[in-house]
Amino acid sequence: MATAYYSDTNGVPKDGDGRVTHLGLRAGELAPRVVSVGSLSRAQRLRDLMDSVSLSLTSPRGFTTYTGTVAGVAVSVVATGMGAPMMDFCVREARQIVDGPMVFVRLGSCGGLSPEATPGTVVLNTPGSVYVSRNPDAFAGGEGGSTPAYTIARPVAPDPRLCAHVCVALRAALGDRVVEGLNASADSFYAAQGRCDEHFDDRNSTVVPEVLAKHPDACSMEMESFALLHLAACSLGTIRACTAAIVAANRHSAAVITTELLHETERVGGRAVLNAVASFGLYL
Amino acid sequence: MATAYYSDTNGVPKDGDGRVTHLGLRAGELAPRVVSVGSLSRAQRLRDLMDSVSLSLTSPRGFTTYTGTVAGVAVSVVATGMGAPMMDFCVREARQIVDGPMVFVRLGSCGGLSPEATPGTVVLNTPGSVYVSRNPDAFAGGEGGSTPAYTIARPVAPDPRLCAHVCVALRAALGDRVVEGLNASADSFYAAQGRCDEHFDDRNSTVVPEVLAKHPDACSMEMESFALLHLAACSLGTIRACTAAIVAANRHSAAVITTELLHETERVGGRAVLNAVASFGLYL
Repeated sequence: MATAYYSDTNGVPKDGDGRVTHLGLRAGELAPRVVSVGSLSRAQRLRDLMDSVSLSLTSPRGFTTYTGTVAGVAVSVVATGMGAPMMDFCVREARQIVDGPMVFVRLGSCGGLSPEATPGTVVLNTPGSVYVSRNPDAFAGGEGGSTPAYTIARPVAPDPRLCAHVCVALRAALGDRVVEGLNASADSFYAAQGRCDEHFDDRNSTVVPEVLAKHPDACSMEMESFALLHLAACSLGTIRACTAAIVAANRHSAAVITTELLHETERVGGRAVLNAVASFGLYL
Repeated sequence: MATAYYSDTNGVPKDGDGRVTHLGLRAGELAPRVVSVGSLSRAQRLRDLMDSVSLSLTSPRGFTTYTGTVAGVAVSVVATGMGAPMMDFCVREARQIVDGPMVFVRLGSCGGLSPEATPGTVVLNTPGSVYVSRNPDAFAGGEGGSTPAYTIARPVAPDPRLCAHVCVALRAALGDRVVEGLNASADSFYAAQGRCDEHFDDRNSTVVPEVLAKHPDACSMEMESFALLHLAACSLGTIRACTAAIVAANRHSAAVITTELLHETERVGGRAVLNAVASFGLYL
């Protein structure tokens, strides 16, 4: 018999087994408390800190989920991969298969924009995140000439109660290696983050200075946090979220994290985030 | 000894081995002729159609590359995953490790926007692609009130010589299952593609009708093709690109492709695209 690839192409498609198409999960397989990371290796490091893991699943579209318990409370760790669209898949398909209030905390990696955001610090985005996106019409010539090459969307804040709870846990674990500050998510790793590449017409040499001029409290830059905070803000009150990221490199000093410090910070910061997510009071 | 995680954080970072950070490849491992697909399973199906494969590599960040030969000519197949930022990684890091002119042809999957774009047809984007993106400021209340919720960026065209060459190959393989028409890439699978989900404030019920009103020749909708065409247009003449996608579902009829037809179309269309890429005259 022929098998339909999926159903409900105008809503949130699921396969015949009730699994959301891209995460590959169905109801009961994801906890209402989610720690979202980018890379699979970080997800594996966090998995190893859980009490027990009852589900490990890598979907055909590249999402890996570990569901288990932390201090006896159900928690999931999801590796989303990279880019705002991947975070969008994660939040929307998660919301589709979990009933009731949800909590998402992201522990990503980022570039440090402020001097104190040195490699190995963790930037907690207490003021939230802005979004930097490229305007392709500015590059097309002709009528697009008056469009700026990059736009900075306004900040979206985290849930203040959740963010304060995560802050206490991160500070207890990492002390003054925690920096609180605004994040700037970008729609790419390269152009919208001001990385220069002579092979392309990018007009991006001023994009980071413009972010800092508009938002002097900007501490970090990455690609996914804004999407999480924006979707939580649009979730009709059902999703609380906050975001933090390990500084992999400082954009001013060009200092880069060592592999050893990255892994240590993933373990120590990851344990703090897992415990904070497990102990957070979950209600609407 | 401590190991730096990567170098050159303000340009295109590479590891100590000369590998670009996200694709995981170094010079000599990627052909100047690239077929880009989204999913790993499609990449594997295309790999199986090559004469020989000299390199198979899955990077820690989720990109899979197969480099080998087609009719004796070096070709690479790259599975980029999903979303415009992933295509951006692919094109920029590929350009960084290959000298001279490059060709990229995407064989993706898409939703059909026009009646003839039925499941199992292949939409070749001869007129190129527009880009549909969400404006988060429109959802923030206050001063953002006059911002439209979604923006449609102007079309970017493919390389006409390359597109004509691919068209001949696809038509020879698939006959009237080839549809030529404009694509609309979106910044997400859900909101910007007009998929409705009661769990979120999306204000997106009119986004697909608006695309069709502005561009009556729009045939397909997906997430990655615009990024490829836009980057090729910004590559200072060094990258030629065109895009095609297998229709997985028609958005009007809600007809969905069968798994069997999807795989057959990947094989037949994939062979046509591989042969077209291998036989294309590569010069600046």
